Amino acid sequence: MALMEPYAAALSELNFSRMYGDDFFLTWDKTSDELSALFTVADALRRLREANISTRIFDSGLGISLFRDNSTRTRFSFASACNMLGLTVQDLDEGKSQIAHGETVRETANMISFMADVIGIRDDMYIGKGHTYQKAVSDAVRQGHADGVLEQVPTLVNLQCDIDHPTQCCADLLHVIHTFGGAQNLHGKKVAMTWAYSPSYGKPLSVPQGVIGLFTRFGMDVVLAHPEGYDVFPEVEELAAKQAAASGGSFKKVASMEEAFEGADIVYPKSWAPFAAMEQRTELYGSGDFAGIDALEKELLAQNAQHMDWECTEELMSTTKNGSALYLHCLPADISGVSCERGEVAASVFDRYRTPLYKQASFKPYIIAAMIFLSKVEDPALMLRKLENKARVRQMTSI
Amino acid sequence: MALMEPYAAALSELNFSRMYGDDFFLTWDKTSDELSALFTVADALRRLREANISTRIFDSGLGISLFRDNSTRTRFSFASACNMLGLTVQDLDEGKSQIAHGETVRETANMISFMADVIGIRDDMYIGKGHTYQKAVSDAVRQGHADGVLEQVPTLVNLQCDIDHPTQCCADLLHVIHTFGGAQNLHGKKVAMTWAYSPSYGKPLSVPQGVIGLFTRFGMDVVLAHPEGYDVFPEVEELAAKQAAASGGSFKKVASMEEAFEGADIVYPKSWAPFAAMEQRTELYGSGDFAGIDALEKELLAQNAQHMDWECTEELMSTTKNGSALYLHCLPADISGVSCERGEVAASVFDRYRTPLYKQASFKPYIIAAMIFLSKVEDPALMLRKLENKARVRQMTSI
Amino acid sequence: MALMEPYAAALSELNFSRMYGDDFFLTWDKTSDELSALFTVADALRRLREANISTRIFDSGLGISLFRDNSTRTRFSFASACNMLGLTVQDLDEGKSQIAHGETVRETANMISFMADVIGIRDDMYIGKGHTYQKAVSDAVRQGHADGVLEQVPTLVNLQCDIDHPTQCCADLLHVIHTFGGAQNLHGKKVAMTWAYSPSYGKPLSVPQGVIGLFTRFGMDVVLAHPEGYDVFPEVEELAAKQAAASGGSFKKVASMEEAFEGADIVYPKSWAPFAAMEQRTELYGSGDFAGIDALEKELLAQNAQHMDWECTEELMSTTKNGSALYLHCLPADISGVSCERGEVAASVFDRYRTPLYKQASFKPYIIAAMIFLSKVEDPALMLRKLENKARVRQMTSI
Repeated sequence: MALMEPYAAALSELNFSRMYGDDFFLTWDKTSDELSALFTVADALRRLREANISTRIFDSGLGISLFRDNSTRTRFSFASACNMLGLTVQDLDEGKSQIAHGETVRETANMISFMADVIGIRDDMYIGKGHTYQKAVSDAVRQGHADGVLEQVPTLVNLQCDIDHPTQCCADLLHVIHTFGGAQNLHGKKVAMTWAYSPSYGKPLSVPQGVIGLFTRFGMDVVLAHPEGYDVFPEVEELAAKQAAASGGSFKKVASMEEAFEGADIVYPKSWAPFAAMEQRTELYGSGDFAGIDALEKELLAQNAQHMDWECTEELMSTTKNGSALYLHCLPADISGVSCERGEVAASVFDRYRTPLYKQASFKPYIIAAMIFLSKVEDPALMLRKLENKARVRQMTSI
Repeated sequence: MALMEPYAAALSELNFSRMYGDDFFLTWDKTSDELSALFTVADALRRLREANISTRIFDSGLGISLFRDNSTRTRFSFASACNMLGLTVQDLDEGKSQIAHGETVRETANMISFMADVIGIRDDMYIGKGHTYQKAVSDAVRQGHADGVLEQVPTLVNLQCDIDHPTQCCADLLHVIHTFGGAQNLHGKKVAMTWAYSPSYGKPLSVPQGVIGLFTRFGMDVVLAHPEGYDVFPEVEELAAKQAAASGGSFKKVASMEEAFEGADIVYPKSWAPFAAMEQRTELYGSGDFAGIDALEKELLAQNAQHMDWECTEELMSTTKNGSALYLHCLPADISGVSCERGEVAASVFDRYRTPLYKQASFKPYIIAAMIFLSKVEDPALMLRKLENKARVRQMTSI
Repeated sequence: MALMEPYAAALSELNFSRMYGDDFFLTWDKTSDELSALFTVADALRRLREANISTRIFDSGLGISLFRDNSTRTRFSFASACNMLGLTVQDLDEGKSQIAHGETVRETANMISFMADVIGIRDDMYIGKGHTYQKAVSDAVRQGHADGVLEQVPTLVNLQCDIDHPTQCCADLLHVIHTFGGAQNLHGKKVAMTWAYSPSYGKPLSVPQGVIGLFTRFGMDVVLAHPEGYDVFPEVEELAAKQAAASGGSFKKVASMEEAFEGADIVYPKSWAPFAAMEQRTELYGSGDFAGIDALEKELLAQNAQHMDWECTEELMSTTKNGSALYLHCLPADISGVSCERGEVAASVFDRYRTPLYKQASFKPYIIAAMIFLSKVEDPALMLRKLENKARVRQMTSI
């Protein structure tokens, strides 16, 4: 009878009214209260589901997905989130679509949105493109609603762009919160967001950027480490520094994994491509210079290969706090001797953290559902209570 | 309490009992009363949705889609229509299917239909094929039901064939009805259905045919204009003439855009391929003559290029009724200077009509839903009232 | 009011409690009581649907499908089964997924299962692979549940593996049961499971294996016939012999279609690839020897071509019991003169049995739904009664 009370009580302390009707692009668009509301609602929805109580707030409606890059985890997380709220996913597969050459974003956005309550987009391949595209879609559907074309405004959820990966990083942080017994315990914890070697090339920067852009808001000591030349967006580094100062934590860059891991409470070793190279690639792509892209790929792989020693080994792990820092990864990881000869992490380290890693991933569907819920529901605390009181079962039992 | 009364009252004046259990192939298969019922139900379903009242008449069930040509607008419209009625779309992707070489239409149709309430098919590429295929599918599932194989008869909805594009043209007309304040105001309005230049080739004839086959039934003065050689199906022209006479309107062909646009209330400038060339293409395809198809393509593009002046310009628009005819397009349009160098319409004209164009498109989901509704519900007026009285919310609110 | 009574009564006589929470890999994993429960629940669910009573036991939830081979019938059957129980299908399209090279089955299985109630897998291409893979997925999600990663255990349903095709063969048998007026009438009936010629190559062995592995449990006289070299798994033959003995039937192998058909009550002529060749192919595939695979294909097609006389002709059919054995096929069949020059069956035979063949196929959605139902519902008899009493309509009617 009182399952939802703690969550409703927590929400009553927070100011997040601006989330109603709003999109979710970047975590740093949101206030601390808004992020707390997100985590609270994610936990509450999980609690309801565990209690076999339906969390459907929609009787019908569509959740549109657009993946401009391959995806398993995020695709299934988005599908799960939509499903648990009562929305049906309709995928915009650009390969099967009649989107005319030169068709405006505005037109496509309106054409797919007549009954769309949510639009989730992954567009992480080109610097300066993904976030811009998502904004353009959001502007288009808001305009469409203002013009009387759309009966409702679909909420835009960033499923990964060139700048941030908020559904991933919020799931990561919610896992950290649960592991450390609450957000209040994060103050002063050392987080090592470090580059790691991978034999593949061109991995997006949105995870490291998302992590330093989010974790610096919780009073943690966030350290970013990468080989020379593997810088992330300078703007995000600046933001991280500013946020760290404001939250009573710190943000610094170091030049080695060793220094980053030393005494860390949390480590997030993960490969990414150099920002400057990704910018270059975007330009080459823009000018249709495919030979140039091939040459760049070779160059980058060679550059990566100079940093094979950036691997999360047992030895490095032993230098973390009590030798047992929480190891994070967005998955799939490049595991040495398993998925590649040399990779981001030693097999024994990965194996030891397998269950926590899977739990980390398990928060993503709830984070996405909470993003939608907060945008669609005017009084989330009341709605959570209503769902509990209504107590429609998710799966009928025989009893 | 009385949201549905005007719609129910309108339906009570109409004789459309034959639509129950029937398919929707061509608009001219339907009586005027039946078309009126279609528009009334489409408006009623929209009204319910706007009032946040669920229009689900299905608790479960499948809507099968088969797109033999790329589609965004119609795909999302079909998905939306199914969703708002409670059906789940299952797409028959012929590329991922095990449909044996030589497998009969009858077999495939039955195999996908065990729990299908609707089948929507787009098959518009070859003259003499699409409509025939749709008929064969309908015959097969009706036979399957008669034989005790299928527990229900799935309703066939033509999502575009070689002859007609009824979901598009009915959406177009419903937009016209709303723009002009009711079907009763359409009498005597001049409609210019004209060819327009496009740098692409092989666009289907189903839209111009659908428009002259539908708009001639409402007492309008329908003018068809195209360059020499760009004729549409002669049978549809004959039909249009007959219908125009019967409805107190007129149908004539003219040889220039200028003449068609002169004083027009409504203009629909759009590219299509010559009927004779499309017949030739179908034969070449049938005999596997791909070199012949390539040659034909080049020939047709060259032929198109001779008619670049068939463009909907500001100058032409100024010759329409009060210089402000309603501009229609099924989208996406080839916009000069935007999606191509020279195209169907000047950018400034398109831009000025953008919002009405998007509204035009917004009717399609409701038209499709109404086609399904009228086939599945024996007493539509009663059901609309029932939905309103039951008032199940589409999206839960906190209040 | 008492629609479900006969089914509930039948279930009360059976011991099938082990099916609750269990997967469905192979029919011979299940006891006779469990198979009887499966058939009873399949019939009961069909009865409810015919009475327009919703069979949804899920308000939300996902059914994951993974097809590693093309599929129409099974894909639509799985979609239908999920839909009628209230689950939404989310397809794992490995081509669009970010499944890292070397990513473990354990990881992928968990990543797709956070809200999965069912996972259906078709993986029938390689000997020794499909069943093993399905087991690994099941183990992974059970481990994930034990580790607190997954809130529920998704039920694994074998949609065809290298060993068995239980959803097909159970649908086949349920069709036989209905045709012969009950399982009690099957004792002593002669079943001819025979190879037949096809101009294609590499058809899976799971159907003949599944048939002899299932039909031998019902006291029938099962005869397996194939040309020399077209043996199926020896283990399944042994199993068939043992089961036949235990059920009071018989199992024998003969060397000609003629001998198999003689006096048969049921015939199932169908092409398959030799087990030994399929093993060889798996090895060639494993070692990346594509030239070897091509050579093997040619060899096998040539070998097939020596047995063109293995065709189900009218003449052969006339030698069956009263000249009217029940003809079975999993479809699509290779029909002589229709889908190929010479194939598995004469066109006139196929045509005569078309309606029963389609009915045979119509049981598959219900078999799959029953497999899920029995795994998810602790007291199926009670749940069937509950569904009937609740009597939520599947499709709203106007009355």
